[in-house]
Amino acid sequence: MEFFNVLSVQEVNLIIEKLAKEYSIGTEAVDLINAVDRIIAKDYFSTVNLPQFNRSTVDGYAVICNDVMGASEAMPSFLECVSEVSMGQSTDLIVKKGQAVYVPTGGMVPSGADGMVMIEYVQKLDEQTLLIHKPIAPGENITFIGDDLREGDLVAPKGKKITAYDVGLLAAIGKGEIQVYTKPRFAILSTGDEIIDIHETQNLGQIREINGYALCALIQQIGGEVIKKIIVKDDFNKLKAELTKTIEQADIVLISGGSSVGARDYTKQVIESFEKGEVLVHGISIKPGKPTILGKINNKLVYGLPGHPASALIIFNIFVKSYMYQILNRSLNSFNVIAAIDSNVHSSPGKETYQMVQLMKKDNEWRAIPLYGKSGMMTLLSRASGYIRISDEKEGLMKGEQVDVYLFQEVDL
Amino acid sequence: MEFFNVLSVQEVNLIIEKLAKEYSIGTEAVDLINAVDRIIAKDYFSTVNLPQFNRSTVDGYAVICNDVMGASEAMPSFLECVSEVSMGQSTDLIVKKGQAVYVPTGGMVPSGADGMVMIEYVQKLDEQTLLIHKPIAPGENITFIGDDLREGDLVAPKGKKITAYDVGLLAAIGKGEIQVYTKPRFAILSTGDEIIDIHETQNLGQIREINGYALCALIQQIGGEVIKKIIVKDDFNKLKAELTKTIEQADIVLISGGSSVGARDYTKQVIESFEKGEVLVHGISIKPGKPTILGKINNKLVYGLPGHPASALIIFNIFVKSYMYQILNRSLNSFNVIAAIDSNVHSSPGKETYQMVQLMKKDNEWRAIPLYGKSGMMTLLSRASGYIRISDEKEGLMKGEQVDVYLFQEVDL
Repeated sequence: MEFFNVLSVQEVNLIIEKLAKEYSIGTEAVDLINAVDRIIAKDYFSTVNLPQFNRSTVDGYAVICNDVMGASEAMPSFLECVSEVSMGQSTDLIVKKGQAVYVPTGGMVPSGADGMVMIEYVQKLDEQTLLIHKPIAPGENITFIGDDLREGDLVAPKGKKITAYDVGLLAAIGKGEIQVYTKPRFAILSTGDEIIDIHETQNLGQIREINGYALCALIQQIGGEVIKKIIVKDDFNKLKAELTKTIEQADIVLISGGSSVGARDYTKQVIESFEKGEVLVHGISIKPGKPTILGKINNKLVYGLPGHPASALIIFNIFVKSYMYQILNRSLNSFNVIAAIDSNVHSSPGKETYQMVQLMKKDNEWRAIPLYGKSGMMTLLSRASGYIRISDEKEGLMKGEQVDVYLFQEVDL
Repeated sequence: MEFFNVLSVQEVNLIIEKLAKEYSIGTEAVDLINAVDRIIAKDYFSTVNLPQFNRSTVDGYAVICNDVMGASEAMPSFLECVSEVSMGQSTDLIVKKGQAVYVPTGGMVPSGADGMVMIEYVQKLDEQTLLIHKPIAPGENITFIGDDLREGDLVAPKGKKITAYDVGLLAAIGKGEIQVYTKPRFAILSTGDEIIDIHETQNLGQIREINGYALCALIQQIGGEVIKKIIVKDDFNKLKAELTKTIEQADIVLISGGSSVGARDYTKQVIESFEKGEVLVHGISIKPGKPTILGKINNKLVYGLPGHPASALIIFNIFVKSYMYQILNRSLNSFNVIAAIDSNVHSSPGKETYQMVQLMKKDNEWRAIPLYGKSGMMTLLSRASGYIRISDEKEGLMKGEQVDVYLFQEVDL
């Protein structure tokens, strides 16, 4: 019988980092309207100033601040209204001492003026004579050229996931097409003689394909593309044939099941049967998820995930996402919720334990409630908000201890 | 000149709640593989037990626990191996006193047995004689029928956003098609004579369409569909014509710009010009976002959003999302990060202030750093993690005070 040669989480992460550096993913241009949530593939700098002209932030009159110094209800300043600026039009008017020009919100403030008086504080005596009832400070109610963004400023760095606000900013500077990384292409091979697909009739002893569906959903959520999802029998030749067909088209291959050391666990054997196939990890000192394989065929990473759904999905969250983020040059998502653990948790020293928790707010503080169940239970995952990590040096956690909760959902700050 | 008739945030929320109750959105069936992130339209109960048979969680031997009581390396128990169970097959074997049956991980545990001994603790003397070196407790290494899910259990409630783990669970119980709410259809009309689209040549005084692009991205992110996004001149007839064309097809209409009280602000007038058009809100005591309109035409909600991008996007986050969530029967997303405010913040009593902040972790605590800038600045939004709410009764916040930070990104726990 074969045994695991177990590596630590840290050792596995170093291997993943090295593999990611060796892999290069393509880029493509997408229309800005479809760019949200894609990963930007080059640094975007502004080629313009934003705003491009001194803009009024109110409906009112462009004036020289000195002219309205000390103005009040009782002692208004008199100004001559010489013209008005239309929306969307530029103007070469120059405001001179004693003059005012009407400018709508968003309109261009003419030269000479250094402040905008809101229309609420202006009384029109006749078409040309204005009474100003309030003084203003220089710059008041004006956004000056480049206040928001200057030519040359970094707008969005390479590796950033494009937010809706980035889309707005890229629109503002006129970038209609954005260079992004292609979506990493995943293939999912679910192995197991007992596994049947969702539309098949179930006989006693058989179980329905779970991992393929859940993995496919996770991949969609984090911005990957699933190019193949199939069920393969526990058979060396069938698995080898599918992997051969898949390895060229996919960026990342996930084989679910068959990653342990049993007689019918073929993942390792199949990876090693490729000319440039190599198994780099077989067994990780982690709970759940010990029977995990990382192999490479040419420069493609092939994961052998445990068959237990909970284990497979935790391993995906910890070791697959991080690889995908790295080949996209993304900084790893470090957001977590700081919470107090709601009851004692036991863990085994020597293994890094990932404990699923549900977050609840009590007394204006987040509490992490550990969820327990037998290995492979799907209901636990569906109830969990995320997980906590208990280091391999600890024997557990005491109720009330502060923990970092990593949400299943990706959060970008 | 017309003035605002300002309502409080709470009053506006009550109006939205009432409108949402009067609106009903359709449902549709989607394949499970496309169901992630959709909103489930009916309660799903399990029609099966999960697992459907007593399943082994290890490779090993099904035994009667009593038979191996006290077994040890020095004093093993002897058992007769009478058969083995194949993966994916049911078995009608019955384990009797003194007998053992081989069962692989995930295989069916035969009747009579009440525990599984891991293969690591078994020594084979010959094909039929096993030495067991370790006792086990009743139920050990078995997941019993219904342990994960029982027939009749609620699997996913109406109004839940389907997670990847829900997809796994729905796959496990064989639901290949899921009834979900249709994606709410949005139309976005950006008004303004100064607004030009991204591919147009920009003259001085003109500004590029920002709100339409950013709103479109936000809508995609929260699971809505944009059926129209156009720029309309500040012209009563043009706006009326576009709204007439749009109102029947859309569930929600967003008109960006033209929501204030200026001479060229037509949104209110146009809504009221429809036979069943009514303006319910014109002005909200909120900062930013005061010049906001909520109207209805027939039973369709029409928002008049401020033209300033920052204001428009904040109003979307506060009043548009909540309406959309309610017509989808979603419980409002209540997740927030608990943080300490990093500097004093001033606010105006009488207005609910929404202050954008960036989250940073310092000394294992989240700090909310207020971001300031002139009204309408897009770079602020693009740097912000979310916002804090300062009640209209407060004059501000003191540095170090605990605040709830609402992330721009939707977080479901």
